[in-house]
Amino acid sequence: MNKPSSAVFALVLAGGAGTRFWPASRSLRPKQLLPLAGDGPLLRQTVERVLAVCANDGGSPWDRVLIATGAHLAEATRAMLPELGQPAFLLEPVPRNTAPCIAWAAAVVARRDPEAVVMVLPSDHHIADVEGFRATLRTAVESARSGAITTIGIRPTRAETGFGYIEVEGAVVTGKAQRGLKFVEKPSAEVAAAYVAGGRHLWNAGMFFFRAKDMLAAVQRYLPKVAEGLAVLDQAASRGEEEQALFSVFPALPSVSIDHGVMDHLPELAVVPGDFGWSDVGSFQAAWELGAKDESGNVAAPGTVLLDGEGNYVLDLRRTAGKRVIALVGVDDLVVVETDDALLVTTRERAQDVKLVVDELKKRGEKTLI
Amino acid sequence: MNKPSSAVFALVLAGGAGTRFWPASRSLRPKQLLPLAGDGPLLRQTVERVLAVCANDGGSPWDRVLIATGAHLAEATRAMLPELGQPAFLLEPVPRNTAPCIAWAAAVVARRDPEAVVMVLPSDHHIADVEGFRATLRTAVESARSGAITTIGIRPTRAETGFGYIEVEGAVVTGKAQRGLKFVEKPSAEVAAAYVAGGRHLWNAGMFFFRAKDMLAAVQRYLPKVAEGLAVLDQAASRGEEEQALFSVFPALPSVSIDHGVMDHLPELAVVPGDFGWSDVGSFQAAWELGAKDESGNVAAPGTVLLDGEGNYVLDLRRTAGKRVIALVGVDDLVVVETDDALLVTTRERAQDVKLVVDELKKRGEKTLI
Repeated sequence: MNKPSSAVFALVLAGGAGTRFWPASRSLRPKQLLPLAGDGPLLRQTVERVLAVCANDGGSPWDRVLIATGAHLAEATRAMLPELGQPAFLLEPVPRNTAPCIAWAAAVVARRDPEAVVMVLPSDHHIADVEGFRATLRTAVESARSGAITTIGIRPTRAETGFGYIEVEGAVVTGKAQRGLKFVEKPSAEVAAAYVAGGRHLWNAGMFFFRAKDMLAAVQRYLPKVAEGLAVLDQAASRGEEEQALFSVFPALPSVSIDHGVMDHLPELAVVPGDFGWSDVGSFQAAWELGAKDESGNVAAPGTVLLDGEGNYVLDLRRTAGKRVIALVGVDDLVVVETDDALLVTTRERAQDVKLVVDELKKRGEKTLI
Repeated sequence: MNKPSSAVFALVLAGGAGTRFWPASRSLRPKQLLPLAGDGPLLRQTVERVLAVCANDGGSPWDRVLIATGAHLAEATRAMLPELGQPAFLLEPVPRNTAPCIAWAAAVVARRDPEAVVMVLPSDHHIADVEGFRATLRTAVESARSGAITTIGIRPTRAETGFGYIEVEGAVVTGKAQRGLKFVEKPSAEVAAAYVAGGRHLWNAGMFFFRAKDMLAAVQRYLPKVAEGLAVLDQAASRGEEEQALFSVFPALPSVSIDHGVMDHLPELAVVPGDFGWSDVGSFQAAWELGAKDESGNVAAPGTVLLDGEGNYVLDLRRTAGKRVIALVGVDDLVVVETDDALLVTTRERAQDVKLVVDELKKRGEKTLI
């Protein structure tokens, strides 16, 4: 038998809000809690997708899952993952972007095993090729285990201007950790086209891999204020008082992304190129593209009455969904989204403009509807 | 002071079903119970419109109102007219078309005053010019008081093939009872065009006026089986047992319309031409045409969020209407109708095809949804 590998933890980032999926998404029900693509809420799919990678050391993979989210989302988030105990949830009292939260998770894992590898994974993406994804994760975990802070870069399928990119040294080789050169912000259309043509730029999907101790060392070096806060939390944790300490420590931390706070400064960054049908599910249009379609290209729950209509996207999130009927007659390419307190009817083409509705509701002083 | 006129009763026909307004209309919530045009349910508008005409003799006009409906609709119908006592509702145990029901109402009125005039009025129409309508009603009542069974004919505004017509002798003169020649069924487009061009055909709007005793005499003559049933009901009523008798008498009556059962046989028929913005509100398209529009031609409750959309019709009949939001973004000419258990999205152009949804639900064995 081989020497058992150190444990692999998954830190799933499940905070954030979002107005692109109103009325499905709300401040208290952000995108990752919604069944926008695939089977079930995106968050739960994310966790189930990576359990097999966390199961490397014979322990229960559920013991290797951490969920970072805002305290206000705790209840809704826990409800989707009843397998997880209380300690699995890292509840941020206030949002401080990704760096403080990832650093905190590294500290929590390091208390158990500083050699353990942490996979940082966003919770609101869709992945078509789950096996291919797991293979890429394992490559990234191996890279991290060797001491390199590692990220996954997605092979671009279009000259997208809405994502950041990562430049790698040399030509991209799938399935192998390569040397990353730098992170670049959302480019212009021209630059994005050049990136895709050049073949050395990958999409930054916000996935990071490291040994707990390596991230803590990087934080010590590049984010010393965060490191100070972690020291206070570690001491409080040893007295069983971490939860209380959070409320004084967390708000005092700088709000900074892991990309800017840590990744940009690293002398060495490993990048594993990936090609596994990744989508950030950025709009109802994307949800329609990913959805299971009937012969007329409609994405709708079974039971929906669709007469003479093509290319519609119907999402019913009401408590009574399935007991009531939604009927579309003679309409094409619409987006119809129902919740208990709101109904949206728009076109797939205009789906990005639902944020205008949120703006309008804010103007009206609505609180519960947004 | 003039001799007091005999009483004027309104018999409002509020039975019937209808699939053209699904999901707003249901077997237990037919069209007349819906706020499809004007202010409030069509039935209640019908009653309020005619109270002034029933108030001719100084009594309370509410005591002059009779509502004929199906027993299964009793509860919903009463709820809309709390001013009316139990005896005002003529509840048909089974539908037998209009003749038995109108004859029964004539008998009920005759027990109080055989000279009283009865106005028979459908409950599911919209009338724009209420004062003009009342003036026409008064002319028709005068005609009926003189002993002529009278109807109102609507001046056609288009070559409609969906209505029956009434031919009058000579040119049409508004505001005056004229001699009617015959009822004609729904014509072909060609024939309808000729009717409109000819100027001697009016739409049959199903409004009839007669003294109670005159209708009873006509029923005796042309519908003897109905007259026999009425005799049984009269006897039972004298013993306070009319309600029980109905269940044996009514189902045995022939199912026949007043047009075919009585009107077609009359040697003399008076027709009062009317021109008061009448609409039968035949579809959501008609409801949109009649509705109050915003500057973009949308008909929707205040509070609806309408962004970059024109000509939409939105009807929210949910219990929570007003507490939830409906948002339309970038869509035109749609019909959006919500109830507690159903949502319809279609176009104004396809609005007539909602009956296809009802067919589909029947095929699925749905009962409560239709």
